Order: sequence, then C-alpha cells, then structure tokens
Amino acid sequence: MQDLLTEIAEVAAENPDKGEVANYIPELAGIDPGQFGMAIALADGSVFSAGDADVPFSIQSVSKIFALTLALGRVGDQIWRRVGREPSGLAFDSILLLERENGIPRNPFINAGALVTTDTYLAGSSPREALGELVRFVRAAADDDDIHINEKVARSEIASGHRNFSLAHYLASHGNMYSSVDKVLGTYCHQCAVEMTCRQLALAGRFLIDADSMPALVSVERRRRINALMMTCGHYDGSGDFAFRVGMPGKSGVGGGILVISPGRASIAVWSPGLNQYGNSKLGTEAMELLAQKTGWSVFGVPHVRTDGDV
Amino acid sequence: MQDLLTEIAEVAAENPDKGEVANYIPELAGIDPGQFGMAIALADGSVFSAGDADVPFSIQSVSKIFALTLALGRVGDQIWRRVGREPSGLAFDSILLLERENGIPRNPFINAGALVTTDTYLAGSSPREALGELVRFVRAAADDDDIHINEKVARSEIASGHRNFSLAHYLASHGNMYSSVDKVLGTYCHQCAVEMTCRQLALAGRFLIDADSMPALVSVERRRRINALMMTCGHYDGSGDFAFRVGMPGKSGVGGGILVISPGRASIAVWSPGLNQYGNSKLGTEAMELLAQKTGWSVFGVPHVRTDGDV
Amino acid sequence: MQDLLTEIAEVAAENPDKGEVANYIPELAGIDPGQFGMAIALADGSVFSAGDADVPFSIQSVSKIFALTLALGRVGDQIWRRVGREPSGLAFDSILLLERENGIPRNPFINAGALVTTDTYLAGSSPREALGELVRFVRAAADDDDIHINEKVARSEIASGHRNFSLAHYLASHGNMYSSVDKVLGTYCHQCAVEMTCRQLALAGRFLIDADSMPALVSVERRRRINALMMTCGHYDGSGDFAFRVGMPGKSGVGGGILVISPGRASIAVWSPGLNQYGNSKLGTEAMELLAQKTGWSVFGVPHVRTDGDV
Amino acid sequence: MQDLLTEIAEVAAENPDKGEVANYIPELAGIDPGQFGMAIALADGSVFSAGDADVPFSIQSVSKIFALTLALGRVGDQIWRRVGREPSGLAFDSILLLERENGIPRNPFINAGALVTTDTYLAGSSPREALGELVRFVRAAADDDDIHINEKVARSEIASGHRNFSLAHYLASHGNMYSSVDKVLGTYCHQCAVEMTCRQLALAGRFLIDADSMPALVSVERRRRINALMMTCGHYDGSGDFAFRVGMPGKSGVGGGILVISPGRASIAVWSPGLNQYGNSKLGTEAMELLAQKTGWSVFGVPHVRTDGDV
Repeated sequence: MQDLLTEIAEVAAENPDKGEVANYIPELAGIDPGQFGMAIALADGSVFSAGDADVPFSIQSVSKIFALTLALGRVGDQIWRRVGREPSGLAFDSILLLERENGIPRNPFINAGALVTTDTYLAGSSPREALGELVRFVRAAADDDDIHINEKVARSEIASGHRNFSLAHYLASHGNMYSSVDKVLGTYCHQCAVEMTCRQLALAGRFLIDADSMPALVSVERRRRINALMMTCGHYDGSGDFAFRVGMPGKSGVGGGILVISPGRASIAVWSPGLNQYGNSKLGTEAMELLAQKTGWSVFGVPHVRTDGDV
Repeated sequence: MQDLLTEIAEVAAENPDKGEVANYIPELAGIDPGQFGMAIALADGSVFSAGDADVPFSIQSVSKIFALTLALGRVGDQIWRRVGREPSGLAFDSILLLERENGIPRNPFINAGALVTTDTYLAGSSPREALGELVRFVRAAADDDDIHINEKVARSEIASGHRNFSLAHYLASHGNMYSSVDKVLGTYCHQCAVEMTCRQLALAGRFLIDADSMPALVSVERRRRINALMMTCGHYDGSGDFAFRVGMPGKSGVGGGILVISPGRASIAVWSPGLNQYGNSKLGTEAMELLAQKTGWSVFGVPHVRTDGDV
Repeated sequence: MQDLLTEIAEVAAENPDKGEVANYIPELAGIDPGQFGMAIALADGSVFSAGDADVPFSIQSVSKIFALTLALGRVGDQIWRRVGREPSGLAFDSILLLERENGIPRNPFINAGALVTTDTYLAGSSPREALGELVRFVRAAADDDDIHINEKVARSEIASGHRNFSLAHYLASHGNMYSSVDKVLGTYCHQCAVEMTCRQLALAGRFLIDADSMPALVSVERRRRINALMMTCGHYDGSGDFAFRVGMPGKSGVGGGILVISPGRASIAVWSPGLNQYGNSKLGTEAMELLAQKTGWSVFGVPHVRTDGDV
Repeated sequence: MQDLLTEIAEVAAENPDKGEVANYIPELAGIDPGQFGMAIALADGSVFSAGDADVPFSIQSVSKIFALTLALGRVGDQIWRRVGREPSGLAFDSILLLERENGIPRNPFINAGALVTTDTYLAGSSPREALGELVRFVRAAADDDDIHINEKVARSEIASGHRNFSLAHYLASHGNMYSSVDKVLGTYCHQCAVEMTCRQLALAGRFLIDADSMPALVSVERRRRINALMMTCGHYDGSGDFAFRVGMPGKSGVGGGILVISPGRASIAVWSPGLNQYGNSKLGTEAMELLAQKTGWSVFGVPHVRTDGDV
C-alpha cells in the first residue's frame, strides 16, 4: 500500500496540469497549486501516507459530511422534509432548481442543502456551541485534538459569500431557514474553514468504513446511507463522472480536498488545491482514479475478503 | 435465499398499495397491477425465484442496459462524445436540460440518451439486423432462446410516442442523430418491447456481476462502469432515493421491471407493474429495499467474502 | 370624463370579487380590499377623480418608474449595460433567468432590475440623500409637497424581504451591485414605501404623457422609451395580457396601485388593494380595461386629435 | 414620405454590416444579404416604396399574423385556451417554457404557438383547402392575386425542420395538437413559404391599421389586440428592444421581412435578408428605427391628427 501511495504521489508530481485554484475565496486564492498529499486509513488500523499528507488545508465542503452526520444525530430522518436526496445535475451554488422546487434543496451536499444542514444542527444553540460540537466530533473521529477552524478563512468567506447569502435568503423566503440568515451563514462559513491534514481527514473518515473495527459513531444503516449520498451527490454536477471513473463514494471540497470511502476497507483522503471544471480537485480526482484501478476497490467490482484490504 | 425470496413475495402480495400502472402506452395500460415476481441468479450459478417469476413482461427501459452494452461494443468510449454520464435530476422524458446543453443528453438511461444509444448500435445496419443483434445478445446472456419482441407493444409505443419523437427530432436538430428519426424511433420502440420473465432477466444480468464464474460478455472495467451508471442514473429523478434505500446499482423500466446487480454476488430481477411517483415499480423498489436490508448487500456496506454469496 | 370615472367606480364597487390583498408584506396585509380610487390628469391640465382617490396608499413597484427616471438622469443609456429591456416571462421576484443570464436582470421593472436601478441612482450618495432626491422628484412631478415615505412599511419590508435580499446578493455575486447590499435594500424598501393618493399619482405621471403642455422632466425620446418599457414589462408575467386587454403602457405595484399613460392625452392612476394571479390590482386592471373600451385610448387604435382628449 | 423612404434606403445601402442570412433553411441560405426594400401604405390609400420593394421574398414568420387572424376567425377567443398571450423571454424555437407550462405555448408568434394556430385554422380541412384559404385571405388583404407559395422553400423547411417537428410532437404529447403532426407541419411550412414583395406586404397589412378607410377584415377590437400581441411578442426575445427602439407593433420573419403597423396611419413593410442576434432583419430593424425617429410615429408619442398621416 505504501508503495502504491508513493507511486500515485509521483504521478501527481509529474503532471504539468495542476488545475486552477479557486479564486472566489480570497484567503484561499494564493495557495500553491503544486501541493499534493494523500493518506489512507485501513480498517485494520494501519495508516499510510505520501506527499504533503501532513500539511493542513481548508476542508471546505468535505465538512458537509460531518455536518450532515451531526444534523442526522439531532433530528434523524426528519431532515429529509427540508432537503432532498437526489443529484442536482447543476453547479454547487445553483439557485435554479431551488426555484423549481419551492425552496427544498436537492441534496445536503450542494450549498443550499448544506445551509439547511447547518441550520439543523445549529437549532437552539449559539454558533459557538454548535461549532464546538462540530469540532469535537471531527477531533473524536480523527482521534486527534489538533484540528482547528481558520478564523481568517471563515471571515474571508463571509465577506465574499454573496452567493451563499443569496441562497440562504432564498431558503428563508420559503420558510426553510429557522435561525437567522446571518447566524446560519456565520456558522456555515466557520464549518467550511475547518483545517485538517490528509492524515487527519483519512482518520476522521473511518466511521464511514462500515467495519466493526472502526469507531461506531453512527449506526450501520446511517453510515451506508451517507455513503450512498456521497456516491450520487458528492461531486456536484461531476458526481456521475466520479462514480464512473472511481467507483467509490466521495466528497470533495473547493479547497482541493477529497474524502473517499472504500466500504469495509479504507478511508482515503487526498488534497491538491488545483480544481477541474466541476470544482473538484484535479490531481485528487486523478489520484483516486489511479488508486481505484490499482486496487480494484470500486464498489461495483468483486468484493474481496476483508483481509485483502492491504491489497 | 429461497426462504427470503418467498418472504419478500408474501410481503408484496399483502401490500394493498400496488402503485399505478403506466397508462401512456395503451398496450400496457390494461395490465393487472396485482402481479409480482422476483428471481435471483447467484455468482455460483444457482437461481431462485418467487411469485410470478415466469410471467413474461415488457422490459421497456431495462433494455437500455443491453442497448448501451451493444453501443459500447460498437464505438467504445467514443459514445461519450454524444451522451453524458451525469444524473439528470429531471423526469425520464424531460427535454429541458437538452436545451440547456445543446442536444447532448445527460446520460444513456434517460430517454434522450437511450435514443442516442440506439442510434449508435443501429449505425450502418437495418433496424431488423440491429434488433436481431440485440435479441441475440440478450438470449446469449440469459442462455435462453425463448426471448422475443412483442410487436403489438412496439407498434403501440410508436403510435403513441409523441414525446420520444419530440426528443429524437430535437437531437436531430442538434446533429446528434445519425440515422433517420423514424428509423431510430422504430428500433428504439422495438427494443423497449422485448419481453422477458424475471428468471430470464436475472440470468441475462449475470454478465454485470463482475465475478469470474459469470459470462464474460464485457471487460471488467466496462461492467463496473455500467454498474456505476446504473447507480447514479438508473432510476431517473429517483436515482438518489434508490441508492439511499437499496444501495445497489439498478435499472428500472416503465413496464414494472427492475434489474439490480450485487457486484460479485448476484443479479436480481423483480417485476410488478404498478409504479411510484418516479415511474419506477413501487412493489419492486420496496422488494429490493427489503432484500438489501435482509442480506446487507448494499455496496456501501462491509464486503463479504464471495462464499458468503448464499447469505 | 367625470361621468365615465363615476361609472367605472360604481362597476368596481359592485364587483364581489375584489382579489387577494398581498400578505407577504405584513404592514400591508391588513388593508381593506373593498377600497377603490381612480384619477385622471388630462393633457389640458384638468383632473377628474372618483372613489377613494384621495386616500394615500403604498405605491410599491409603481415607484420603479420614478427610480428608473432618476437612474437614467444619472447615467443615461449606460444603465443598459447592467439591466436588459426584455419582458421576463416570469414572476416579479424570479431568480431563474438571473442565473441563465449571469446576473443581468431582464428589465428594470422586475425586482432584480429595480435593485440595479436603485443601486444606480444611489451611487455616491447616502440613502438619505438619494431618497430625498427621489421624493423631491415625485413631489415636483405631482406639484404637491404632501408626499411622504411610510417608515413603518419600509421597515416591515426590510424585515420580511428575504427574496429581495436573495436577489441583491445574487446580483452582488455577479458584480452587478456597486453599493452594499444592505444600503441598496434599505433604499429600495423606502422607495417602495412612498405613499400617494390616486390624484397625486395621476398628476405625478403627467411628465410621461408626451404632450407639450406637460412638465418637461425628461426628453421626448426618453419618455417614449419609458412608456415602451411599461408596455412590454410593466406587469411582470401579466404584461402581455395587460397590453392585450388595455392597450396602454402601465406599471403596477403590489400595494394595488397602477399608473397608466395614454400618450398625448392623459395620466391615469387607479388603486384597489386586492390582487389578481399576476400580483396586479384586480379591480384596477378591470377598471383600466373598461376605461380603454369606453375611450378607445388603446395605443393600437386610431389616434384622435388632441382636442378629443375629453372623449 | 417618398423622400424619407429614399433616404432610409440609402442609409441601408451604405451600411457595411448587413447581418447574417439564416442558414438553417437550406433553400434560403444562398440569398444575397445586400438586398433592401421598403414600402409604406398610408391610411389615405397612397403607397410609397424604395429599394428592392418589388422583389418577392419568403415572409416566413410574418405569416403568423395572417394565420392568427384566420384562427381567430375560426374559433374566436377559444384559441386562448391553447396558447398564451405573454412574451416568452426566450428564443423563437425554445422548448424550455413549453415543459414548464405543460404544452401551452407562451404566445402565437413563437414557433410552438404558431403550430397551435395552424392546427386551429386547419381543423376539419385538408392542408390544401386551409392553405387555399390563407392565400386567398392574403391576396384579398393586399388586393393582389399575384401572391404564391414557394413549393421548393416549403419542402426545404419540411426536410430540415427537426426543431419544429420536435415542438409539434411535444405539443401532441400534451394533447395540444388536434390534427396529425405531419399534416400540421406540412401546412405550417407551406404557410411560412408564402412569397410577397414589400409593396404587397405593406398593402396586406392595411387591415391592421385601425382606420375606417382601410379594409375591414377584422373587428376594431380584434385588430387592436393583434397589434398588442405584435408589440409584446412580435420579435421573439428581441420584442422589448424593438418596442424600446421603434415603438410600433411589428412582426418579423427569418426571411428578413418585417411588417410594422402605425395605428391609424400606415402599414409598413421592410425586407433585408441579413439577421441580427435575435433572428430579426438587421437592416430592417434599423430602417424601422430611423423611420420612427423621423416621423414620430411611436405609439408612445403624441398622437397626431389623421391628416398628419403624410408626415
């Protein structure tokens, strides 16, 4: 496994086309696109990494997994009254379908849906309390207390987040926003500004592996369902392409991170800040595709016995 | 496994809400919604069935799997220049996204995309030759020569298929239809009118199981990719919901049939003519959900060893 | 003319279907829908009125005419770089086309376009100064200093204006909002909260009559163009219907007021708070239709000599 | 008036940018874009012309005026159950709104709406009879029997008309097409292939002038309403711009012709085959704008007495 990771990191390093760093969040725009890190946490407890796997990055929309998990913990399946579970077929910040569907976002992984998720786990708490709970959850999942919110990034996103404010007010106009727009946006932008390394993120994802040896933070049924949502909706309007090429559930963030789960086997984190046309990490997506080819870990392939986990 | 199937069939029989039979194809409108059949072909070669598993039904859009396989065999990945691989987020016969995207259908499993698929495997052949090839492929996959096209259903669909004609002409207006509209529509409607029993369909689906013991009609990579498309796009705008509830790749047809693949383990066919709000078999979807719960066959769960295939 | 107005007011009084008072602005929701007023200012200087023509009401979107006139005075035709001149075919607060067209609203009379207009005449001023200029303009046009902004209504709209905040942030995300969203929204909501009577509104509209005897507040070309925009875009997605039935350029507001211009002849104001399905005054629209029938003032009919102005 | 027309034709001749000839109808694609003709029929019976005013051209969508008039004659206001009266805000052949609105086209001047119009006047007749009636109506209006359908153009449009076939089948799928799609399309394409000169078209438009001296082919109310529709919907998604710049009701065709009505005064035809971005004649639109400026004939300006008709 270590050899494989090293090989993948070399392929990434040699690729001249690193994609484009997102420039709409000023605080993130200046990041060097040449960086690449990857880490894998296996169901047997072993961890492997390569490249810049210990450099912290802004997890951005990868946080939507943790937020959804918290929100499900709060209200359970009642959340599906306020947000759907279907791929949107449109860009992550599109407002179009929201109008067609009277303020019910398509799924919790597009921005509008994630605002509903944040509003759900925020209910009745102060932003500080809710964010405290989120960070504690992520730290517990990763078994690492050195995970923090980057206040500067959060403020940069609030200051430049007109599209998200637009979505939140739109939801509010349909009665699908319970706390105030400012409070939800503030919490949401801080949630997105959590910083983690690939190693931390891979470890934090283990509760979704669906293996008895892993942290049991959610029920078996719930972790499968979260994986299903990651498969169909995890990469915005590039979700079908990711499923086609990688064949594993994943969730990407505009900071260049992707968390992928190989059910029963592994939690995999990759990071490279340059993005492809869908707003997903370019080198990260390619690395995941290569990993899937080399390991046969597509969920659409023959399931191996768990002891094959080390490939 | 037999006990499980029998139990599922009993649950279906007792459900008073059978859904609504599709009424836009006159020849199918009169079918008794009380029927229910199910069959499972395991990777070890064994086959189980329950209910009306030997009653032939119109496979309709389930045929899009076989059509796509043929088309990929013809032109390989070049087909992706003419059709996408993303969920549409809209109804199976929507024309809306087609306008947004200049005549490139979202995926091969919505009607517009399937018309492109038919146009692809039809290229250079007569409809009779192309349909002959399709039927031979299905018969070979099922290892059963008693599979036929229902000419009356085909003609009924041609006569009432204004929406499909509209889609085909729209594609043609964008230059994404190589044969004549009438020829493609005629072939498409005959393809949809293939009749199979659940047993035959389960057997025919084995080539997608991704197990060495199964018929090797397509390469390993291709069968995984077809499964990925079934997962993200197989149930129109109910694909996310099916993935969430069932967790296995599947493809439904308006005739009430659904083919589901448990990679490495099984090919499963279910049939019940009443449909839910997405146009997918209501009892069939519920039966697949129950099967997934009882077997743990969700692709998002712990992979079992292959010998666990008998549950 | 007085007899005609009296007759129209009687027809309105007897109509049992008064429409529905808009309820999304709390401060306006409690208004008695039984009220009806109408006033006509002729090119010869005479003024006629009937019903509740001296009751002040919230002019709401009728203010968009005055706002556009101010904005054109500020930047002239440069405003057309930021807003279009085409009917939207959609509801007054739709955000759909805004996404299709990258943040350029369809026309200055839907909410998104009016926010751009407000942003234009606001540029470089404080809201207080800009609103002062607006009120002075309206007072000068009406030759009446007793015209004021209802502060309570303005605050009620700001507090409940999620949809407008959504539109404004959306515009801002496309760089089509120069002042801050809060500043523009505050100014916009105060502008909408101007209160006028039918008599005052009819008098204030005279500068659009295009007659030499009228106040020359804008050039001949500009007043014709504003009339053209009122004709094609003045009633949201009911503009075509209004042109078809009334045949004169008009602009409605959700407070139940409508200002209509008979070029060369008259400025006509009507008010009744109950709305039809397009969000335009129901009795007001019907009164204008009756007036058009009785007078033959449709711009699509034979032009009479100006001395026929008294009908 | 003759001097004015001559001047306008000279301005057009000197304009180096003639626009682009439509190339989607093969039979029309080869036309020389340098041609320009204009003719004006005044309410007093006099006729003026300039340039290529006696060269026959394909009136294409200008025919929708005559078709609507026939259809209104057949079924009166019942036609508004099958087609709306609102601007579409989208291209002439867009199918998008049709899906949103369940098969009711926005107005009779976009292609989908015109297909409903054709289906209406066709009802119960053979295409030959219906087209005979149409041609007789146009000849009577123009008082000229030398007006014919170009069979080659009609066939070229049928052969290349995938978009229109798509629209017609879409309407049929919603039950909004009573005759067969082939029959309606055949009739529609022949209707569009009527050939007229500018002089003939100007004369044919006189029944819409709304002056007692003109042919009384429709009631006063109906001619005003047709003018209203021309104003709000006559130039597809460029209708607002045409109203803004020209200020008179008009209807354009992709063959480069435009018919404009100055109510009470004149019927004006212009022709130049090169189109602007909305699919309307470029030089023709500019000529109409110049005419409006020179004459003050905007319906939004001071109505002159009828004897001012000679300018």
